[in-house]
This record gives sequence, C-alpha cells and structure tokens, in this order.
Amino acid sequence: MRVNKNYAKLETSYLFPTISRKVAEYQSQHPEAKIIKLGIGDVTLPLAPAVVTALEKAVAEMGKKETFRGYGPEQGYEFLKEEIQKYYAKRQVALKMDEIFISDGAKSDIGNILDLFDTDNVVLVPDPVYPVYVDTNIMAGRKIIFANATAENHFLPLPDKNVHADIIYICSPNNPTGAVYNKEQLQAWVDYALKEEAIILFDGAYEAFIQDESLPRSIYEIEGAAKCAIEICSFSKTAGFTGLRCGYTIVPEGLDFEGLNLNKMWLRRQTTKYNGVPYIVQRAAAAVFSEEGQKQTKEAIAYYKENIRTISQALDELGIWYVGGENSAYIWLKCPNGMKSWEFFDYLLSEAQVVGTPGAGFGQNGEGFFRLTAFGDKEQTKEAVARLKKLLQK
Amino acid sequence: MRVNKNYAKLETSYLFPTISRKVAEYQSQHPEAKIIKLGIGDVTLPLAPAVVTALEKAVAEMGKKETFRGYGPEQGYEFLKEEIQKYYAKRQVALKMDEIFISDGAKSDIGNILDLFDTDNVVLVPDPVYPVYVDTNIMAGRKIIFANATAENHFLPLPDKNVHADIIYICSPNNPTGAVYNKEQLQAWVDYALKEEAIILFDGAYEAFIQDESLPRSIYEIEGAAKCAIEICSFSKTAGFTGLRCGYTIVPEGLDFEGLNLNKMWLRRQTTKYNGVPYIVQRAAAAVFSEEGQKQTKEAIAYYKENIRTISQALDELGIWYVGGENSAYIWLKCPNGMKSWEFFDYLLSEAQVVGTPGAGFGQNGEGFFRLTAFGDKEQTKEAVARLKKLLQK
Repeated sequence: MRVNKNYAKLETSYLFPTISRKVAEYQSQHPEAKIIKLGIGDVTLPLAPAVVTALEKAVAEMGKKETFRGYGPEQGYEFLKEEIQKYYAKRQVALKMDEIFISDGAKSDIGNILDLFDTDNVVLVPDPVYPVYVDTNIMAGRKIIFANATAENHFLPLPDKNVHADIIYICSPNNPTGAVYNKEQLQAWVDYALKEEAIILFDGAYEAFIQDESLPRSIYEIEGAAKCAIEICSFSKTAGFTGLRCGYTIVPEGLDFEGLNLNKMWLRRQTTKYNGVPYIVQRAAAAVFSEEGQKQTKEAIAYYKENIRTISQALDELGIWYVGGENSAYIWLKCPNGMKSWEFFDYLLSEAQVVGTPGAGFGQNGEGFFRLTAFGDKEQTKEAVARLKKLLQK
Repeated sequence: MRVNKNYAKLETSYLFPTISRKVAEYQSQHPEAKIIKLGIGDVTLPLAPAVVTALEKAVAEMGKKETFRGYGPEQGYEFLKEEIQKYYAKRQVALKMDEIFISDGAKSDIGNILDLFDTDNVVLVPDPVYPVYVDTNIMAGRKIIFANATAENHFLPLPDKNVHADIIYICSPNNPTGAVYNKEQLQAWVDYALKEEAIILFDGAYEAFIQDESLPRSIYEIEGAAKCAIEICSFSKTAGFTGLRCGYTIVPEGLDFEGLNLNKMWLRRQTTKYNGVPYIVQRAAAAVFSEEGQKQTKEAIAYYKENIRTISQALDELGIWYVGGENSAYIWLKCPNGMKSWEFFDYLLSEAQVVGTPGAGFGQNGEGFFRLTAFGDKEQTKEAVARLKKLLQK
C-alpha cells in the first residue's frame, strides 16, 4: 500500500506546545506567580440558558420512543436551516435552503471542502494565517502562494492582478490579526476571483463580533460573490459552541466549474462521507436564533468585546500600534521597542506574568507582532492590562 | 479553478429513492393498506436511560461557567477512550490509549481515513457492498476491484492469492448480508494483507450483534492484525446513537508504510481537519459502558435480535435460503421461485404490503437476493412475517 506522501511535507507547529512549555517552566520556577492567559482562542463563558433549555428538551425527546430521532439528513435539519436562512435575509442575503449545509464546525468543513478541488490548483493564503488553511493543502499536495498582510496594508492584503490563484482563502474578521475587510476591499477580491475563475473560501467564523454596520459580515453582501465564493461559518465563537460542535457552510447553486456544480458535489461529498450533526446539537443551534437566544448570546459577545476595549484602550494610551479589536475577538499589536515576537512573549511572561501568542507562529509576516484575545475572564483581563501598562509606561 | 473530476464518475444510487417512490405510489393507490417496513437500516428504540442521564448531567455542566468545556482533544476525551480500552481488554485485545480515536461515526471515518493513502492503490471491496466503500474511492480516483460474495461462499469471500490489492475492506457482521467471518477466515485475510503489504479497513459497526462467542468481534483478535488493520466502529447500532453521532477508530501504532506511520498520520489528519465529538455526546457514549448502560443497551439489542429470530424462523419453515440473522442485524435471503430482487420487492409490496431492500441495489452479486432487517417494531415484524408466511406457503 502506498501512503499519501504529502504528509511527510507537513511541518510540526511548535507554537502552542512551546507556549505551554514556557508557561509551565516559569510557573514551576515562580510558584507564587499569578499568570494570566490572554492567548486563549477558546470561549470561557457557559452555554446560554436558551441553548441549555433546548438541549434538555431534545435529550428528553431522544429518550422516548415516540419522539426519538435516528439518522437525520446529512446536510442538516430544515428547522435549523430555516433559521440560518432568516438570519441572512436580515442582511439582504437571499439563500435557498439547498445552499445551506449544517456541519460539526468550521474546521471540518475548511478541511473537507478541498475534496471537491483538483490537486492541480494554486492556493492563495494570507500570511500571517490560521495554520489549517496551509496544512490541509499540503496534505493534498497543492501549490501554496501567500498574500502578504503587513502593517502597511493594515494586515488586509488586496489581490495582486499579476498573480494567478485558483483557490483563495479570506478570513474576515481575521484570525489571527482581527483585521476586517470593508465592502470595497472584499469587492476587489470578488472581482479578482471572477476574472481568474477562482473560488473564494470565505471563513466567517468571527462575523458576530462585527459591530460596525457598514462592514460586511457575509461575502454574499458583495456583488458577484454567489458566482465565486463558498462561506464557512461557526457557532463556536458566536454562541460558545466550541465544545458543542456546530457550524454551517453556504455553497451557492451557481458555482459551476468545468461542467460540475460545487453545490451538488458538496451534497454528494457530505451524504457519502458524513452523517450529520447530532439532533440535540442542531436544536441547540436553532435556539441561538430565538429571541432569548439572540439576547443571551449577544450579552456573551458584549462581555468579550468589553475585554477587547479594555485591552485596546490601554494600547492607545501606551501608543502601541495594533489592528483588530473593535470588530473582532483579537488584537494584533506591534511588539514595543522593536522586540521580536518571542522576545516580547518572554518579556511579558517574566515581567508581567501575562501570556499572549507570538505573531511569528502564524507566518513570516507575523514576526514582530503579538496576538491578544477577548476570551479571558473580565477581571483577569483588567488585571493583565494594568500590569501591561505598569510595565510598558516605565 | 480545476474541480475534482472524479466526481463525474460517481453513479447516483437510485436504490432508496426508488423504494420510497414505489411505496408512496402503492400507498396512494391503496390508502387503506397497512404497509410494514422491514427495509429500515436505522434503529427505532430510544436512547437508554443511562445514556439520557449522562446527557442531562453533561448539559448541566455546559451551562455553568465552572464546569463548561470548550475545545476538547480532537481525538477524544480520556474518560471515553479508557472505557473502550477496557471493553477491548475483555476480549484479550490490548490497545494503547493513543491507538483509540473518537469520531462522529463510522461513515465519517470510513471516508476520511482514505486521506492517508495515495490515490495509486488497488482497492478490494466485496460485492455486494455498503456503497460508501465504493463511492469514497471513486471520489479519489482509485482503482476498485471486487471480491465476489455469493451463495456458494455463503457471502463470505476469501482472498484470491492471484490478485493483488492494497486497501481491503472487510465488514463483519456484514452490511448488507449479515454474514459473519469466523477466526480462520479472518486469519486468511490478515495473512493475505501481510503478504501483499496491504491495509485492511475493518468495519465492525455491527459487532454488538454477535452472540456466538467463538466469532471474532474485532480484527485484533486475529494474529498479525495489528500490523495490517485499522478498525472502525460505531455506537450507532450498539447503543442507538444513529442520531447522536459517535464512533471510534483504532489505528495501531505499528502500522508503518513507506517510512510513514499511519497512527501519527491519522492524528495529524484529525487535529487538522476535525475538532472532536461534542463533550456531551462523549459523556453519553461513556455511559454505554457503565453497568446500567451495558444492561440497557443489551436489552435493546435483544429486542432487535428477537425480530431477527421471528424472521429467520419463518424463512426456515418456508425453506427459503438465507445468510445472516443469528449474529447480525440483517437477513439476506434468496428470493423465492427464482425471482429477481426488484420483482420480489414488487411482489412483497403488492401481495403482503411488506417492504424490504432489493439486494441488486448493493452490487451485481446482490441480484436475486433481498435484505430484511432487525430494526422494526416487534409487533409489526411479527405481523409482517405472518403475511410473508401466508403469501409464500400458498
């Protein structure tokens, strides 16, 4: 048997293991130190009461023969797809039911959607980048090129008309930088994709953090996107579903390439290699869209956004350059005094007992930058920021 | 962008849609007819009380900040992997914790495991076959050859030493035929795989239906299997999890091919393209292994096995040839009077208002055979069998 030798080309990421090791070492040398983690990419607030109630109800249904549900439709129950359809309609995006596919999260779909594409395609990813975009394509042996996100373009690279790409990744609000494209910028990407006959994979996992109403939350708010873009979303950050696992992917009906239709291909892929999201989890996801669910999940996001304001106000006071923040869950700051990413990491850990994520871990253009996140505890975030100010105002 | 053109080679299966259409047509022409479905491949009993209690407890945890769980390990929580380790140990199969991967079901893993293999491999699948084995390989462009399962070999084909294969699918107890390999037969497959340097993908989704203690429930009960086999299992049929979604895959540490290790590759695949099973579902799965959970799920299986006995006793009385039954959830019978599969389907529907699954839908060797399942309601199964006897004893 011949293995997929592309796996030998994968590099092991030492980013999070190295952070863990350094933090553990520091803690063991300073047992009294109260380390605060602002590097966390996971939510910390519990599920909303409306979601818990929906889960309880669905669990009870599963325990009775009359209401038990076995195999459901692989692409998701209508009751949840209808809620998503209504959610998009509020922003004047009209989706057909068959264009909505429920999944167990954005990471699965980002990986699995690549099944639909030939290995002989040029993939364009931003640098810095969420490593999954890169690794999933290395696994398939595709050629990867990078769009440079830098301080000069505020970490929002625009298409280079001299470069051809077939598969284009866009994440807005961005992970790791928190930068958000406006409509004109996304229009430039859509126009470029249409011209190159490329497909855009739009990662909208952080759309719920956008508060500026003029910013697009969906790629389909952009003219022409339904002819060139697939959108992948998640309840993970919107409603704290990181441990509950539910997301959705929009594959428009009009995506025809070389005589094949991507919507029909994805349906075939999912009905063949997938068996759908648990019924009880789909009920929980539907509850996110109820009046109570919307109110409660927005409160949780407001809590995280307050953390972001706490951090960004301090950076403003300190005169530290950053992107992200206002419309996202991440702040991406330039390390003060020309420090490199890991240098600043060590400095912050040893002098303020605060942990963040070195930007260099996300790609070459991340060197000299640093990521802080919204997902900490409110009081801990305030304390971390106070330490940061004390340290850097010296 | 170039699409994966292998999708154009996929054939649409009309099996279940055709069954649905024929049943709907008959019902509309005979509104008074009480049609009984014995073609169903889904469970019908509700979740066991121990599973419901575990779900309720885990849902409550997720609703409180102190006990909330976000991202878990992609390969599954230790508490569930330990239960599976103990379950295998009872049959003298020693698994390491790192060899166990929790998943959202056998269908996902059967599809996704193929990521690890080159497209340039010869795939050997039995005929008749669970269509997923074929379609997932067509999607990747692999060459597929068939092992003929026929009445002569009791639908348990053995390896042909004159034929080379790289990836070998074995499903025992088999879907669709219900036939079960004994140890000597599986040993022949393992010996063949080792000689050919092939990998066996062993689908054990129906292992819980085996009651004959001499029959292997796991491929790892066979000497040498840890050097050539991956085993994929599911709680779907074992504990009625078809709507809850949980399974597991065993990838032994000793599977080295061409300098790469399949265990490490699968870990990399799952951590990159997957985010794990919902915490609450893993708690539910762990509860299956509790004393109460074992008792209750075995009761459910006993209920289904009684349906199988009801059917097989009638076939014995009628002198109809079949395989499966005793140690599985399916009965695979030879259509009486030389009828073809669809001919018998129509006959049974029109004359007895009983619905089964035409064997021809599972492959060429299925022609002239017919599948009945254990998963119906007890009283309905008895009634269906009474009608069958009345019809065929004439």
